[in-house]
Amino acid sequence: MIKIKEISASPPDSITKEWAEEATKNYVKRIGELQEMMYAEQKHSLLVVFQGMDGSGKDGAVNNVFAKCNLAGVTVTGYKKPTEEEFAHDFLWRIHKQAPAKGQIAIFVRSHYEDVLIQRVHGWIEEERVTKRIAAINAFENLLQFDNQTVVLKFFLHISLEAQAKQLMERVETPEKRWKHNDGDWSERKLWDDYMSAYENVLNHAEIPWTITPVDKRWYRDYIVSKTVCEAMENLQPKFPAIEIDMAKIKA
Amino acid sequence: MIKIKEISASPPDSITKEWAEEATKNYVKRIGELQEMMYAEQKHSLLVVFQGMDGSGKDGAVNNVFAKCNLAGVTVTGYKKPTEEEFAHDFLWRIHKQAPAKGQIAIFVRSHYEDVLIQRVHGWIEEERVTKRIAAINAFENLLQFDNQTVVLKFFLHISLEAQAKQLMERVETPEKRWKHNDGDWSERKLWDDYMSAYENVLNHAEIPWTITPVDKRWYRDYIVSKTVCEAMENLQPKFPAIEIDMAKIKA
Repeated sequence: MIKIKEISASPPDSITKEWAEEATKNYVKRIGELQEMMYAEQKHSLLVVFQGMDGSGKDGAVNNVFAKCNLAGVTVTGYKKPTEEEFAHDFLWRIHKQAPAKGQIAIFVRSHYEDVLIQRVHGWIEEERVTKRIAAINAFENLLQFDNQTVVLKFFLHISLEAQAKQLMERVETPEKRWKHNDGDWSERKLWDDYMSAYENVLNHAEIPWTITPVDKRWYRDYIVSKTVCEAMENLQPKFPAIEIDMAKIKA
Repeated sequence: MIKIKEISASPPDSITKEWAEEATKNYVKRIGELQEMMYAEQKHSLLVVFQGMDGSGKDGAVNNVFAKCNLAGVTVTGYKKPTEEEFAHDFLWRIHKQAPAKGQIAIFVRSHYEDVLIQRVHGWIEEERVTKRIAAINAFENLLQFDNQTVVLKFFLHISLEAQAKQLMERVETPEKRWKHNDGDWSERKLWDDYMSAYENVLNHAEIPWTITPVDKRWYRDYIVSKTVCEAMENLQPKFPAIEIDMAKIKA
């Protein structure tokens, strides 16, 4: 049983920033190499989900960890409030469309989990439907796994209430970050405990486990995410496909 | 009247590799900064089209020039042979879907132009329909411009027949590049003059002009593309939106 409160949002003392940054650099480079092979091989695919409170650094994680990838093989989808058309469908309809094709990496910044998080915290959804939706999510993620060789990686970017205040205040005070400011982010802070309890519900009912990622220090976030992504891709042992070439044809 | 044969695919003597690489580095960095503002402002958008023969380095141009962008604001679409569903629609149907939303950059690796290039070269399409399609393309690109503030940039990656042979042979000889090899690329070389004449037709009938980009040297390709993209974005004068913040609300 995961209890978020018992998990620190800071890096462990045993790891220094310098060491983690060096390791991250190597993981990021290797992710680029593995992606090239995955892309060429068209056998496996990867779905990477980022969830976390405002200011937990979802966009930053994406940009840093996938910096060496071939963009033709990567899609990033940021999920916002559903459009009218999306809202007129089941909550997985807009998600399923963005599932990765073989050889591709699909990255979700927020995701189908919002439908059992923000909706639950605000009481827009009945508890019974939350339970059904979580079962539907598990079925959906399993489907991607068994029917399209998709590896599903999910990161809960775990930020402390204090670090979030610092992040949000930085948006207020830095002219180039001001556009990210949203009054609503501050009022949501009052619901912090409710959000954590909704996240705990998600974490504890997941069939495909989450990586709980302490993000109070961005360098530790990048280290954990790049390490996890790299190891998962390494496990797939992607290979450039063997191609027979008829030199006679070429010379003709 | 553009004649491709009269245009060199090599860099001009006046520019050195070292100088161009330094300039490219600065353009790429600045593109990242401008994109952040464009993304924040949600006013303009950018459609960047890459066309060119096999081995002209379309993917490489994308990865190098947009390396400092926030991936949440960039989509890359590689157009291949149409699917059955796509083929059951007009040729712009699958293209229009991928047009950039305000604040976004959409990059096309190959594009709607294939439908008046490869199709024409192989005689799969009547000349009258080519003419109509080119008119439709002009109307479509104008629509994006006037109705969604989309800046349309089109790059014809101009490679010489000799440099292409070198690129294709590198694929044959380098194990990590072998997956890119395609017998068909070699046989298409016999149609080189027909391709150039189809490209000339496109270049000469474009309402929104193309940037003819000599790519025999990759560093010159990146220099021209990054310079052109950067200057076009600079012209838009994107700004972070001014946001009024009520500090009382935050402190509450």
